[in-house]
Amino acid sequence: MKRIAISSLNQFVLDVLDQCGVSGDDARTTAEVLVTTDTWGVFTHGTKALRGYAKRLRAGGLDPRGRPVIEAEGPAWARVNGNSSLGMVASIFAMKFAIEKARASGVALVTVRNSCHFGAAGYYVHLATREKMIGFAMANDVPSVAAPGSKGPVLGSNPFAFGAPADACPPMMLDISTAVVAGGKIKSALAEGRPISPDWLVDSEGRPTTDGHLYPDHASLNPMAGHKGYGLALMIEVLSGPLSGAAVRDKVGSWIGDNPSIPTDHGHAFLAIDPATITGGNDFPGGMTSLIRGIKKIPVVSEAGALKIPGEIEHRKAEDAGAEGIPLPEDVWESLRGAAADASIPLPV
Amino acid sequence: MKRIAISSLNQFVLDVLDQCGVSGDDARTTAEVLVTTDTWGVFTHGTKALRGYAKRLRAGGLDPRGRPVIEAEGPAWARVNGNSSLGMVASIFAMKFAIEKARASGVALVTVRNSCHFGAAGYYVHLATREKMIGFAMANDVPSVAAPGSKGPVLGSNPFAFGAPADACPPMMLDISTAVVAGGKIKSALAEGRPISPDWLVDSEGRPTTDGHLYPDHASLNPMAGHKGYGLALMIEVLSGPLSGAAVRDKVGSWIGDNPSIPTDHGHAFLAIDPATITGGNDFPGGMTSLIRGIKKIPVVSEAGALKIPGEIEHRKAEDAGAEGIPLPEDVWESLRGAAADASIPLPV
Repeated sequence: MKRIAISSLNQFVLDVLDQCGVSGDDARTTAEVLVTTDTWGVFTHGTKALRGYAKRLRAGGLDPRGRPVIEAEGPAWARVNGNSSLGMVASIFAMKFAIEKARASGVALVTVRNSCHFGAAGYYVHLATREKMIGFAMANDVPSVAAPGSKGPVLGSNPFAFGAPADACPPMMLDISTAVVAGGKIKSALAEGRPISPDWLVDSEGRPTTDGHLYPDHASLNPMAGHKGYGLALMIEVLSGPLSGAAVRDKVGSWIGDNPSIPTDHGHAFLAIDPATITGGNDFPGGMTSLIRGIKKIPVVSEAGALKIPGEIEHRKAEDAGAEGIPLPEDVWESLRGAAADASIPLPV
Repeated sequence: MKRIAISSLNQFVLDVLDQCGVSGDDARTTAEVLVTTDTWGVFTHGTKALRGYAKRLRAGGLDPRGRPVIEAEGPAWARVNGNSSLGMVASIFAMKFAIEKARASGVALVTVRNSCHFGAAGYYVHLATREKMIGFAMANDVPSVAAPGSKGPVLGSNPFAFGAPADACPPMMLDISTAVVAGGKIKSALAEGRPISPDWLVDSEGRPTTDGHLYPDHASLNPMAGHKGYGLALMIEVLSGPLSGAAVRDKVGSWIGDNPSIPTDHGHAFLAIDPATITGGNDFPGGMTSLIRGIKKIPVVSEAGALKIPGEIEHRKAEDAGAEGIPLPEDVWESLRGAAADASIPLPV
């Protein structure tokens, strides 16, 4: 772990994206998503992914000048074609449009096709909550997660995020994968010699396995909560795939494993709700604060603290990162070194 | 287990509700929800609950002549006051309104306050799918589920349902509680002498317990998938409570345990999406069929079958019930006997 100033990391992302031919606006958008995600401590989905995105930008699977466009719209919905732009570029375009429409219509749904990996789903609900909106974000992905009883992967780890603003507390922000654990947890357990729980993986015959080396080629993650997580992942697939017109299930490309010259055609769905419109006033943020404060008063097992509200840890880490820099783990530094070498630019210090 | 014809069970529910002063239309609506739920084999949420609803109707906590009203609306949303009508009456009113608005606006959200237990969340998404719509339904409830680290219950078992239509397969219908298991499972394990898994319950000190007798007064259910299920239950609480204006968390009454003369003020949220509008055509049901058929081809552990799609089991059971009657378990018969005695009407044979 070595800390880096937010501004230095941000500039590095801009430099790499500039070297790949991404326009200034789109590079700023993307850097903001990735660096903010790192400030939250969600290092699996922040700048660690930059090198992979850059490879796709150079190879053509991502179009550095790709512009998301609205294919069709109504007052409370829109359908966006990402046109192989960076997943962050297409997703911010879509979520901002959903927020704008929800301000007029109370609620708005925007789907996206022809996109790619969009980083942390939580970033897009954060866009909503900072506009005092409720937000939802989700995406499909290449299959890596089994269904109860399957012999191989059925769905992606299909991420889902929800956020809601409060007036006297940080906003609620839930960002989960529908797999029992992230694939990265298998890899870090292997790297650090920690055991793999028998609940995490099934082999290609559908049997529980603790052999982490089998993942991902010969083992699949389990869904969270068994058939319930499988069902929620299916819901996310339906909204991100058949509803958006994007690739579905095994037709989605792997942004990291597949030929970087071929678009992955990920799909997303974003929903924004304006609580001021729906409640007809300004009661909602206060109601959220009251809900959160009530939960904070509930006795807990440890004497140390109180129950956590989703997003609270990320909020605190972001404050720390603003004051002291982002404590980037070594695996992120390693990926940044690779990205710097690929782009022939210096690594930030 | 003894089978009963759908029409006989339906008539019995009508007779009990009539005896409680519920109008013919509202009784038909409620009977349709409860009996359909039984045909799905979801016996915990079908006519077994009739006796409890009838008690509240007689005591005044539910108003037999209560009419849900629209308090405010826009083209893509509405806010409904259930006015202490039966939860099924308020919920059908709300979901039908969401479907009607979604047909014009593509998407519509309807919240409900001043409601009660609404039976099976899945019924309301079934209303949507039979109109070729995507539907979501959810509700808050009196706390019975712990959060990771809590010493007591934090949130209800907050149910969530999602449904989507397909053209050549039964619709997808996911209906889950956000608790690790239903409270009824604790009671049936106790009744049948089966062990309680140490993952299911925590005692009032937050320690895992296998003593099912402690539930619900001195133990709480665990959330499904730990912090993820807690987070999803919070999302449902936010949409059903602060957004609807209903009671929140420990302010929600227990429809079964609390004074039946006092309204419970449950809240709900219903969302409908018209895929024909969003996709600009009729591709969606075919896309769903293709997704479902792809999953059906995936090899499975057992030689017996194929992966299940949420709602498939319920669909098959409903077909069987239509042909051969509903195989009501003894605990449902016992509750119906009580409802018959309370209403001084004969039990159907």
